[in-house]
Amino acid sequence: MKTRIYFLLAFLMVASSYAQEHPVKIVFDVTSSDNALHKTAVRHVKAMSNAYPNSEFEVVMYSGAMEMVLKDKSVVAKEIEALVKKDNVTFVICEGTMKRHKVTASNLIEGVKSVPDGILEIVSKQNEGWGYIKETP
Amino acid sequence: MKTRIYFLLAFLMVASSYAQEHPVKIVFDVTSSDNALHKTAVRHVKAMSNAYPNSEFEVVMYSGAMEMVLKDKSVVAKEIEALVKKDNVTFVICEGTMKRHKVTASNLIEGVKSVPDGILEIVSKQNEGWGYIKETP
Amino acid sequence: MKTRIYFLLAFLMVASSYAQEHPVKIVFDVTSSDNALHKTAVRHVKAMSNAYPNSEFEVVMYSGAMEMVLKDKSVVAKEIEALVKKDNVTFVICEGTMKRHKVTASNLIEGVKSVPDGILEIVSKQNEGWGYIKETP
Repeated sequence: MKTRIYFLLAFLMVASSYAQEHPVKIVFDVTSSDNALHKTAVRHVKAMSNAYPNSEFEVVMYSGAMEMVLKDKSVVAKEIEALVKKDNVTFVICEGTMKRHKVTASNLIEGVKSVPDGILEIVSKQNEGWGYIKETP
Repeated sequence: MKTRIYFLLAFLMVASSYAQEHPVKIVFDVTSSDNALHKTAVRHVKAMSNAYPNSEFEVVMYSGAMEMVLKDKSVVAKEIEALVKKDNVTFVICEGTMKRHKVTASNLIEGVKSVPDGILEIVSKQNEGWGYIKETP
Repeated sequence: MKTRIYFLLAFLMVASSYAQEHPVKIVFDVTSSDNALHKTAVRHVKAMSNAYPNSEFEVVMYSGAMEMVLKDKSVVAKEIEALVKKDNVTFVICEGTMKRHKVTASNLIEGVKSVPDGILEIVSKQNEGWGYIKETP
């Protein structure tokens, strides 16, 4: 157990030395309805926002990923609620997707924001120099 | 019904105000053989090309997505045929993929073009500053 | 047979004329556990590294793609072992993913390297101007 913690610390130190000198900004694209993928995406954001506190992370959900941010259906509701309290993490859902699913802001996990158009949000971030990661199962 | 139309108009106005000032160029990457994904990708391009007429959109199909542009098999043949008539929308299929499927230009939906290499096309667009969206189920 | 070879040659000549003048750098993102996708990704890298010898290619595996680089489990072990001998091809696995699967360097296909964080590696490449391709089934 101790060994694993030492390993983890060493890993975080090496990886974060790069990111502290070169803060990164990453936009994650999530369209899958797959619950396992929702857990994976959240794990990525949690690990990275801990390891690289100077960096910024935004998760954009649209298309099939509506349930990921619904407070009554998401399998990662608690994790998202905790993550969005961090200064360097944002979760946003596409308003076009909300409309198609007849969802209103009151159905969303607390702290999740919305954007008019998920794809436009992602491409705008890319244009501003953010890195792009498509999350898929 | 009227309320929904007003909502939609408000949504399009907000979203398009950004894109009209900052015309975007987006290349969509489609490799899935999944018919539902073909419908989703076409829906995205249709909505965005309507909302942002100053912007440009190219859909690049390769690998498993051959059927999406086959006039006898595509579930979105009519939609693609209509979309490619727009000035700001292009659908292209990888010629390497056509070769592997023994497909010729005469099998393609009218207006669909081909490029020598799908991946090279996508990366060239990225190099020119286009945004990138991977479409997945 | 001869005809197909001539076709292939013509295809490679046209496509490579662009890439020789504009050498590309592409980072491939693989997270799927799907063996068919592993074969597809390797086929892409093989074809492109042959066609565009001046260009550079890096495949980053993380999340569900651990088995793709395990010498006892990968369905593309021979192909990867051959590809990494090329000067312009690199395969790297995320050390975070290795740790979660209790995998050590000795379990990896010969020539496969590791990076502290797969996502950080991909985004760093993007920041340096590399093109990005998400490989999905």
